[in-house]
Amino acid sequence: MRYRLTIEYNGGPFVGWQRQENGPSVQGALEDAVFKLSGERVNVAGAGRTDAGVHARGQVAHFDLEKEFAVDKVRDALNYYLKPAPVAVLDAEIASPDFHARFSATSRRYLYRIMCRKAPLVIERGFAWHIQRDLDADAMHEAAQSLVGYHDFTTFRAVECQADSPVKTLDRLDVKRMGNEIHIEASARSFLHRQVRSMVGSLKMVGEGKWKVSDTARVLEARDRAQCGALAPPDGLYLMRVDYAGGFAK
Amino acid sequence: MRYRLTIEYNGGPFVGWQRQENGPSVQGALEDAVFKLSGERVNVAGAGRTDAGVHARGQVAHFDLEKEFAVDKVRDALNYYLKPAPVAVLDAEIASPDFHARFSATSRRYLYRIMCRKAPLVIERGFAWHIQRDLDADAMHEAAQSLVGYHDFTTFRAVECQADSPVKTLDRLDVKRMGNEIHIEASARSFLHRQVRSMVGSLKMVGEGKWKVSDTARVLEARDRAQCGALAPPDGLYLMRVDYAGGFAK
Repeated sequence: MRYRLTIEYNGGPFVGWQRQENGPSVQGALEDAVFKLSGERVNVAGAGRTDAGVHARGQVAHFDLEKEFAVDKVRDALNYYLKPAPVAVLDAEIASPDFHARFSATSRRYLYRIMCRKAPLVIERGFAWHIQRDLDADAMHEAAQSLVGYHDFTTFRAVECQADSPVKTLDRLDVKRMGNEIHIEASARSFLHRQVRSMVGSLKMVGEGKWKVSDTARVLEARDRAQCGALAPPDGLYLMRVDYAGGFAK
Repeated sequence: MRYRLTIEYNGGPFVGWQRQENGPSVQGALEDAVFKLSGERVNVAGAGRTDAGVHARGQVAHFDLEKEFAVDKVRDALNYYLKPAPVAVLDAEIASPDFHARFSATSRRYLYRIMCRKAPLVIERGFAWHIQRDLDADAMHEAAQSLVGYHDFTTFRAVECQADSPVKTLDRLDVKRMGNEIHIEASARSFLHRQVRSMVGSLKMVGEGKWKVSDTARVLEARDRAQCGALAPPDGLYLMRVDYAGGFAK
């Protein structure tokens, strides 16, 4: 039986989604919880392999079990065994055997939060990028539009990115101001490694006035990693939602 | 010289606003930071003496110093010396000698956040009241209106409350649903000890259908602490803003 989970986590204490030797991962926490529930050692496959410190509000994952459990029991038991790790299963469902959390996904949506103020963050500590000056959100939004569409995103791709091709279609990149907070929303079928944080780091250059709006299109066309703005920190990034085509839709 | 501060804090690690023998307080953290800045031992007087675990987005406080400092330096230096305590000075200003953070306040505004869902809170852990079932926010709002106005709030007052009178005017008590989150906003010139958490605990009874809407007016009229709903936890409560009459307005 294939189970599908919708998951929230605080990425702060983790080395990232993916199981690694060097520390606790979200995937490892889930696999341990599944073992405690079922006695079965499984691979939990996630839709997005978020980096260390990156949060999720709507990560999707799947795994297979020999045993059959009621989905509400799967959700509640995993939440029980996950404690005190800051990972919560929001929803568990039965998925069809050909559903794959990563490969069946048709759209991923990320949010990046920036807080502009002199004082350090305390309530949002670890949950937003703290910038001590105001940013021009309108200029950032205008610059962002030059990244939307079908492009070679080599400039905005981590050196260690393992994707076959740097060519992707970015469906949406919106920059909105809400008081002293700036929200950047990005959606695409898939992203390159660190693409969102690379784009946010570059848009921040525009927001500070260090880059002109047109510099964003220029660095995109350069296809040169060295021209990217400094990577934005993981704290502000949230995997919000993963969508699937009709047959797999919730 | 009298200085006025606007302060944000995560109340989680504190015994409350007020300096106490039994653990770290927000007031103590600020007084220590003022000493490191100025070499002067002062009393920092706050507008609202929030309980252990209660947060603030806009607490106001004042203190007096012999020395004169630029207000931006006061803000930045206090933030420097406050680290790593989760307290931030958002703003520092010069106040008139007759300004008093507590006694000059004409209005205090609180927010209470409830999150209704089966899964435990992870990103909001410590920052909202987690309730595992859905609440009827419309019924809660209707019930709340019977508390608005000039009343004897004995039912909603902690036994240890030191106010001279249990009679207060509640200016506003609004209950709003936003997705699976419920926001309760309360404003008044002043509140009794634990009044907001007592009212929220009672409104939750209405939201669960354990009380009828009309029960709220009945328990208010009873003037009997024993009839109050169980106290809501501190996690969801935020002191949002304190207002002052014209002469002291920011």
